[in-house]
Amino acid sequence: MASKFVSKRNLEFLLYEVFDILALTKYEHYQAHDRQMFDMVMNTSLKMAEESFLPILAEMDRNPPELGGGTIKVHPNIRKIMRDFGEGGWIGSIHPEAVGGFQLPLMMDNACNFIFSAANYSAGVYPGLSKGAAGLIINFGSQELIDTYVPKLLSGEWQGTMALTEPQAGSSLTDIVTAAEPTEHGYYKMKGRKIFISAADHDGVDNIIHLMLAKIPGGPLGVKGISLFVVPKKRIGEDGKLVSNDVAASEVYHKLGYRGAPIVGLSIGENGDCRGYLVGEAHQGLRYMFQMMNEARLGVGMGAAAIASAAYYTALDYTRERPQGRKPNEKDPSKPQTPIIEHADVKRMLLFQKAVVEGSLSLIMQCSEYADLAKVETGEAKANHELLLDILTPIAKTYPSEMGIQSVSQSLQCLGGYGYCDDFPIEQYYRDARIHPIHEGTTAIHGMDLLGRKVNIQDGAAFRLYLAEVRGATERAQSIAETKPFADQLNAALDTLQQVTTHLQGLSKSAGTERYLADATLYLELFGILTIAWQWLVQGMAAQAALRKSPSASDVDFYQGKLFAMQYFFRYELPKTLGLSAVLMGDNPLTVEMDSKYLA
Amino acid sequence: MASKFVSKRNLEFLLYEVFDILALTKYEHYQAHDRQMFDMVMNTSLKMAEESFLPILAEMDRNPPELGGGTIKVHPNIRKIMRDFGEGGWIGSIHPEAVGGFQLPLMMDNACNFIFSAANYSAGVYPGLSKGAAGLIINFGSQELIDTYVPKLLSGEWQGTMALTEPQAGSSLTDIVTAAEPTEHGYYKMKGRKIFISAADHDGVDNIIHLMLAKIPGGPLGVKGISLFVVPKKRIGEDGKLVSNDVAASEVYHKLGYRGAPIVGLSIGENGDCRGYLVGEAHQGLRYMFQMMNEARLGVGMGAAAIASAAYYTALDYTRERPQGRKPNEKDPSKPQTPIIEHADVKRMLLFQKAVVEGSLSLIMQCSEYADLAKVETGEAKANHELLLDILTPIAKTYPSEMGIQSVSQSLQCLGGYGYCDDFPIEQYYRDARIHPIHEGTTAIHGMDLLGRKVNIQDGAAFRLYLAEVRGATERAQSIAETKPFADQLNAALDTLQQVTTHLQGLSKSAGTERYLADATLYLELFGILTIAWQWLVQGMAAQAALRKSPSASDVDFYQGKLFAMQYFFRYELPKTLGLSAVLMGDNPLTVEMDSKYLA
Repeated sequence: MASKFVSKRNLEFLLYEVFDILALTKYEHYQAHDRQMFDMVMNTSLKMAEESFLPILAEMDRNPPELGGGTIKVHPNIRKIMRDFGEGGWIGSIHPEAVGGFQLPLMMDNACNFIFSAANYSAGVYPGLSKGAAGLIINFGSQELIDTYVPKLLSGEWQGTMALTEPQAGSSLTDIVTAAEPTEHGYYKMKGRKIFISAADHDGVDNIIHLMLAKIPGGPLGVKGISLFVVPKKRIGEDGKLVSNDVAASEVYHKLGYRGAPIVGLSIGENGDCRGYLVGEAHQGLRYMFQMMNEARLGVGMGAAAIASAAYYTALDYTRERPQGRKPNEKDPSKPQTPIIEHADVKRMLLFQKAVVEGSLSLIMQCSEYADLAKVETGEAKANHELLLDILTPIAKTYPSEMGIQSVSQSLQCLGGYGYCDDFPIEQYYRDARIHPIHEGTTAIHGMDLLGRKVNIQDGAAFRLYLAEVRGATERAQSIAETKPFADQLNAALDTLQQVTTHLQGLSKSAGTERYLADATLYLELFGILTIAWQWLVQGMAAQAALRKSPSASDVDFYQGKLFAMQYFFRYELPKTLGLSAVLMGDNPLTVEMDSKYLA
Repeated sequence: MASKFVSKRNLEFLLYEVFDILALTKYEHYQAHDRQMFDMVMNTSLKMAEESFLPILAEMDRNPPELGGGTIKVHPNIRKIMRDFGEGGWIGSIHPEAVGGFQLPLMMDNACNFIFSAANYSAGVYPGLSKGAAGLIINFGSQELIDTYVPKLLSGEWQGTMALTEPQAGSSLTDIVTAAEPTEHGYYKMKGRKIFISAADHDGVDNIIHLMLAKIPGGPLGVKGISLFVVPKKRIGEDGKLVSNDVAASEVYHKLGYRGAPIVGLSIGENGDCRGYLVGEAHQGLRYMFQMMNEARLGVGMGAAAIASAAYYTALDYTRERPQGRKPNEKDPSKPQTPIIEHADVKRMLLFQKAVVEGSLSLIMQCSEYADLAKVETGEAKANHELLLDILTPIAKTYPSEMGIQSVSQSLQCLGGYGYCDDFPIEQYYRDARIHPIHEGTTAIHGMDLLGRKVNIQDGAAFRLYLAEVRGATERAQSIAETKPFADQLNAALDTLQQVTTHLQGLSKSAGTERYLADATLYLELFGILTIAWQWLVQGMAAQAALRKSPSASDVDFYQGKLFAMQYFFRYELPKTLGLSAVLMGDNPLTVEMDSKYLA
């Protein structure tokens, strides 16, 4: 049997005990699903992950994609994986039945993506990108675009991408210059360069469909002039056959990790023959793309937690089996050595990993549930869930990304020297995990998104909703003896978060935007720790409730484990907010006022 | 010119302005040296680092050592580097003139090692290990051992190693089983296995000399029965020629980073023909080895800071040159983009790197100065400096190792996607840096060393001396207006450290050793942050003093930069002690009492 990389029991706990995915099936949109169906979906994804993802984890890393002969050669199994995903309905999982989709709740989809990503993050990226690209066309494209591209994307025959980044612009989408010149034929002539585009060329599919941001000359400056285009690598020629569309892979990046997926530089329209097809209205591209980006950001958080999950179970196996040293109170060298999991410091490291992995996954599920509800609700309920999703997205992206690195690093540390060697997969996880604070918006960008936009949208409506959600949970937890102390602790931390927020908003008025946002990254970190504490409180309450129902012996251990991990989080992680709030409440003009020449 | 990887100005600041290396030259042992000599030594090391270390940094990483034909093939330049180091006197730098050494102060030696390690950490490991092995023979070996091995080690013809770790024992030296059977010929017959031995076989030298821990059968159990042996790969045969000594490289590890140096598994005496030569007295091996290990631990801290230094200057270069985005108060997209170093968050990340690199290096210099003084002093002064070195060694090893990883990670983050690609060296630094919390004792082991031994040695004498040193600095700093607020802040943090220590010592009595040591890693982290704050205060005072002497314009910038970095440390890093002390003062039996079965 393949070694463990996820806990199925934990996924079920989140889906059915902490959150309530079955409640979604009362809505017409999700009514085709039931528990039996969900079980089948999860079991199938576990089987696929074990049988086709996990076995090629190291191979894909050791033989990274290479450019040659006009395409990028990737692992030969990618073609089969894409087709299997297509046939199994995984690429269209969340899309409407009308276009061949499965209308699966995002909660269930993300549970499965978590399984795939934990088994082999790079392999999961290919179908995930096609899913996102298809979603954009379905939501904003014309019927002709849908008919032309969506079936091939959902079948896994063609690959979808998100083509945003450019050499001169990087994170600053304002500054993209790829041009889309209108023609009298309805299509646009595209010209430009893109960099760091995932899966933007490879030999595992028959065509690549870029969802590309570009500017129509003469349009508004900055982000207001960005439009979205479908730009295929091969377009459909007059005889119905695929012909080159003048989009070429100019380079493939050699990366620290995440090496199983090609990240590509593209030359677009070098020969003046690249056609793009406008999606929706001109100049609305960024708005459309944000829909995909927000899902992608949840996906990054999910993937980061998944890699940390795989590393955690590797560390858990190792520490149970590896005898070394003795307890501090056992000095007799003739006594046998103890498995290292019995050392308090190793337990602390493992609890940290469990707390990060399961706390992060819980937040991803929470956000997915908001998204699932917003999809089928109307009016205020819909608006509220969208606002909650808005304010939580930077956290759901960043906490797992940043803490996932720390978690994998602690997994590696549990194996000592062996963790540093490629006999175990953790050194790869350590490399793979480092991408997450960079792609889909760096941590700094999410900090500014949270403090600069999300906290203030609709005059603070999203922030108020967030506080109400968390306060609601602490109120429920206060009525239970076992969770009351943690609820009190979280309430106090929330008071601090509100004080910090008010202080910073005052600073914004008195000292300007730059000062306001200078430590936005630390504000995001503070907000993230509180948010995961909330998720642990919610999990703790669910575990406590379950324990009162005389569960089986193995379930008792599972629920007790949840309570210990909750305790760990409140005792070891939440106190980190003390230092962060002290920094944020301090009067620190340093990074704004210091001339950069003093850095040397 | 090679890109910058260290600041020579900063090394001079530490050697001549913060500390006083020239004061050492008043002692007979160091009297052959003067400023001119030191300048020459540093300039030579900079030149060698730039010309022979830096150019093969990536090559050594991309072509790691491989086992074949009875040896391990390493980069062809290693042979020349070892000989150049030998001829230049670098391997014998700190050793006595009587054996061909140079009697260089450790401060100067570590300044040079910092330069070499920043240019190419792996390359510096080879001569560094020979230096340590030679030191053990010089200090504890017979004249015959000295005459036989030291000249060849110092010339770079032979490689020295520290052979401690075994498969069944790992960090637990108590449990080593490599046997040394006495014979009537004076030598011992060696049999056993060693793992994770650095540079333990390679084709860049003519012989390998292992300084190996083993047990003489019938000796005391545990660490009290460990003896130290010289075990050459090839021994001197009856005709004076080298013949095989039955020590074989059985494997070379494939590692995440630090790939330029071979880490080797050894089979010793498989054919019953391996001879070992006892160093000093039987059963005293661990005591002897600790001398080498303590120097090696300072060396690990130095190397960790050096890698972070190289990454910092790479990030600094990049952020000055890369334009991206605009300041938060500049919304006009027609305005040019700003270099990213002007973004407050990027300045914060760079200040963090500067604070870690220069704070760590300052502590290494502080410890080196104590070691240099202890070497030439007598009586109480010597004893006190040895105690200070004792208590600071776990910190000087761990703070740079743990925070060096974070620092390199922030360097990588400054480059965004490019930091993740091998177009820049940072992805390699990120991999290289991860070894440091593992080798020469894991972070957990140093935590237990600090709290379990060092804080309590001689009834707390080392801890009292430490507090006196730091309080002495805060007292001086309180008399200067510019440093007074930081001195006050450090004093308050020291009060907290004392409270935490007293609390834990009480817990030791009331709840036992296991509870006392359960969070020793966090205690070490707390202690480390305070210690680096002290080093920043000391640097801040030196900079402030220098500014009063009308320095040159470039020096004004340098000293101002020091003051800003000090401010950064006190405002952003020292507050982390708030959370740590809250955890340590809390009553947390969790990791001791929780059954490991709940981890799942």
